[in-house]
Amino acid sequence: MSQKVRIALDAMGGDFGASVVVPGAAISLTRHPDTEFLLFGDSALINKELQAHPALKAASQVIHTDVAVSMHDKPSQALRRGRKTSSMWLAIEAVKNGKADVTVSAGNTGALMAMSRFCLRTLPGVDRPAIAAVWPTLRGDSVVLDLGASIGGDAEHLRTLAVMGSAMARVLFDLERPTVGLLNIGVEEIKGGEEIRAAADLLRAMDSPQFDFIGFVEGDGIGKGAADVIVSEGFAGNIALKAAEGTARQISEYLRSAMSRTWRSKLGYLFARQAFRSLKDKMDPNKSNGGVFLGLNGVVVKSHGGTSADGFAYAVDVGYDMVRYDLLTKINQTLHRDPAALGVLPTAQEAVS
Amino acid sequence: MSQKVRIALDAMGGDFGASVVVPGAAISLTRHPDTEFLLFGDSALINKELQAHPALKAASQVIHTDVAVSMHDKPSQALRRGRKTSSMWLAIEAVKNGKADVTVSAGNTGALMAMSRFCLRTLPGVDRPAIAAVWPTLRGDSVVLDLGASIGGDAEHLRTLAVMGSAMARVLFDLERPTVGLLNIGVEEIKGGEEIRAAADLLRAMDSPQFDFIGFVEGDGIGKGAADVIVSEGFAGNIALKAAEGTARQISEYLRSAMSRTWRSKLGYLFARQAFRSLKDKMDPNKSNGGVFLGLNGVVVKSHGGTSADGFAYAVDVGYDMVRYDLLTKINQTLHRDPAALGVLPTAQEAVS
Repeated sequence: MSQKVRIALDAMGGDFGASVVVPGAAISLTRHPDTEFLLFGDSALINKELQAHPALKAASQVIHTDVAVSMHDKPSQALRRGRKTSSMWLAIEAVKNGKADVTVSAGNTGALMAMSRFCLRTLPGVDRPAIAAVWPTLRGDSVVLDLGASIGGDAEHLRTLAVMGSAMARVLFDLERPTVGLLNIGVEEIKGGEEIRAAADLLRAMDSPQFDFIGFVEGDGIGKGAADVIVSEGFAGNIALKAAEGTARQISEYLRSAMSRTWRSKLGYLFARQAFRSLKDKMDPNKSNGGVFLGLNGVVVKSHGGTSADGFAYAVDVGYDMVRYDLLTKINQTLHRDPAALGVLPTAQEAVS
Repeated sequence: MSQKVRIALDAMGGDFGASVVVPGAAISLTRHPDTEFLLFGDSALINKELQAHPALKAASQVIHTDVAVSMHDKPSQALRRGRKTSSMWLAIEAVKNGKADVTVSAGNTGALMAMSRFCLRTLPGVDRPAIAAVWPTLRGDSVVLDLGASIGGDAEHLRTLAVMGSAMARVLFDLERPTVGLLNIGVEEIKGGEEIRAAADLLRAMDSPQFDFIGFVEGDGIGKGAADVIVSEGFAGNIALKAAEGTARQISEYLRSAMSRTWRSKLGYLFARQAFRSLKDKMDPNKSNGGVFLGLNGVVVKSHGGTSADGFAYAVDVGYDMVRYDLLTKINQTLHRDPAALGVLPTAQEAVS
C-alpha cells in the first residue's frame, strides 16, 4: 500500500475529548508519518489543541459538529440524538463513505457499537459483531473475544467468533494456522453450558485448515497463552478481562507499597530500577488499549474512555496496523473462504438466562 | 466451644492423595492442637504417611476403604461407584452422622459437590449449593461466590447467593452489615443480562438489615474490594477467579525473570528480599486454598486438587475456622431470620443458554 492510511477520529469521545484525542494522535503520527487524520468534533476545541501539534495539524482535516455523544448516553439515546450529526457517527460514516480507512473513538462502548452496527452493518452471515483485543500472555500475545459486545449466544455464534478471531490472529501474528480455544470452567468434555459443548462439536467437525481447535481453555489458561485465540461469549469474556486488569493493578499496588516500606527495599528498588521499568512496561494497560470491532463492513477501534494521550496513541496504532496490513480484507476472505462456518440463515438470538 | 474440632479428611483426594493430605493435616494440627482427625482411605498408605507425623497419628483415627473417587470421574460415575464406599463419601457421611464437624477433600470438585448434595441435602429454600472463597483485595478480604458449583441461574438464585455470602462475610469478617455487589459487565443499570437486573431489583427491594446491596461491580472491582461480598452465577465467577489467578502467576513470572536479568537487578533483589517475601506471601495461592460449599446441611471444604501439603493445611484451617466460629449455625440463622429471601417454593432451575 503506497497511499497514506486515513484515520477518522471521534475527537469528542472519551472522558477527556480533544485534550487526549489530539495529543494521542500526534504521538501516533510520530510513529507512523504516513497517516492522515479526519478530526470530527467541536472545531474550536480541536483547533486549540492542534496549535501545540503543528505536524498533526498539517496532516489533519477538521470537520466541525456541535453534537457529541455523552459517556452516559444509552445506545438508543445516542442513536436518536447523534445519528448523522454527532462526532462519533460522522467518524464512522467516513469509513462507510470511503473517506477514511478506519475509525478510532474513546466514546462510550454501547453507543459506538450501536452506531457502528447501524451505519456499517454486519458482514453477511454474522449476526452480532464482537469486540476483540490483544491479550499479552507468557507465550506472546493472544486474541481474546468477545469482550462484551453482546451477552450470551448459541453454538453458531461462538463458531463465528472463532472464525473471526482466528482470522485476526493469522494476520496480526503472522500464523498459518492459529490455535483456538473455547473459554470454559473446566477442560473436561463434560464441563460448561450446552452451547459451549455444542460449539466445541461444531469446531471439531469443521476441522478448518485456517485454525486448529484445541478444545476448552480455563480462565487461567489465557495468561499462559494456552491458545492463540480465546473465544467466549461477551459476558464471561468481559469479566475475564476486567478481573485480570484488576489483579494486575492490585499486584502493582502491593509491589509499590512493599518496595517503599524500608530503606533496604528502597535501595533494592534503586538498583533494580531498570527491571521494574521493564515490568511496568509489560504491565502497562495503555499498551493493550484498542478493542477491535469484528464482524462489520468496516474497521472501528474502541479506546478506553479514561485513557491518557499515550494510551489513545496505542489505540490509533492498532487502527493503523489494521489498515496497513489489510486486516479487514483478510478477515473477510477467511470468512468467505469458509462460508459453511457462518451459517446462511441468521441464528436465533438466544436469551441469556 | 470446649470440645475438640473433629475434621473428616478424604485422604485419597487430590492429585497426590495421602502424601499431601497427611502432612497437610500435620501442619494444620500444629496451628490448632485442639483438632481430631478422621482419615478415610487406604489404611496402609495412610499409616505409612502417619509414621512421619506422630502427633497427628495420636490425634487421628484411620478408617479403611479400598474405594477412591478418581480425579477424572464424572459426578454420576463417582456416585455410582463411590456412594457409601469411597473415602470421599465416608468423609462426608461422617458429618451427616455427627461423627465429624467438617469434611475437607482435595478430590474432584464435581464429584465432591454431587456427593455432598446427595448425602447432606441442601438447606430448606436453597435450590443449588454454591462454592464460596475468600478473595484477597486491596481493602482486605472479600467473599466471592459462586465459583463454579452450578452454571447460570435466575434472579432468585442470585438473591440466595447474596444471602448466604453475606452471612459468611458477617461471621468471617465480623461485620454488622457487609456490602454486597452483583458481578456485571458494567455498573450502569442498563448493563447485563435480564436475570442480573432482576436480581438487583430483588436485592434492593429486600432492603435487608443483614447486608447492604451496593449494586453492580465489574470484574476489576473485585480486586479493589468494591464490596465485602461479590455475587455471580458459577460460570462467570469461576472465569473471574481463574483469570485473576492466571494473571497473578503471569506477573510473578515477569517479575522473577526481570529480577534475574542483570547484576544490578539481582543486587536490588537481595536488598529488597524482605519486600519480595512479603509480596510473595500476599500472592501465595495456597493461602486462598479452601472453597466452602454453602447451602448444605453440613460444612464441606474443597481444596485445590494439585495443592501442596502447605496448601492443603490452609484448606484444613478454613474447615477448622468454620467449626470453631460456628459458621454454619450462623449462616443458617441468617438464612432463617430472613425466610422471605429464600422463596418458599424451589425455584425453577433455569437452562443455561
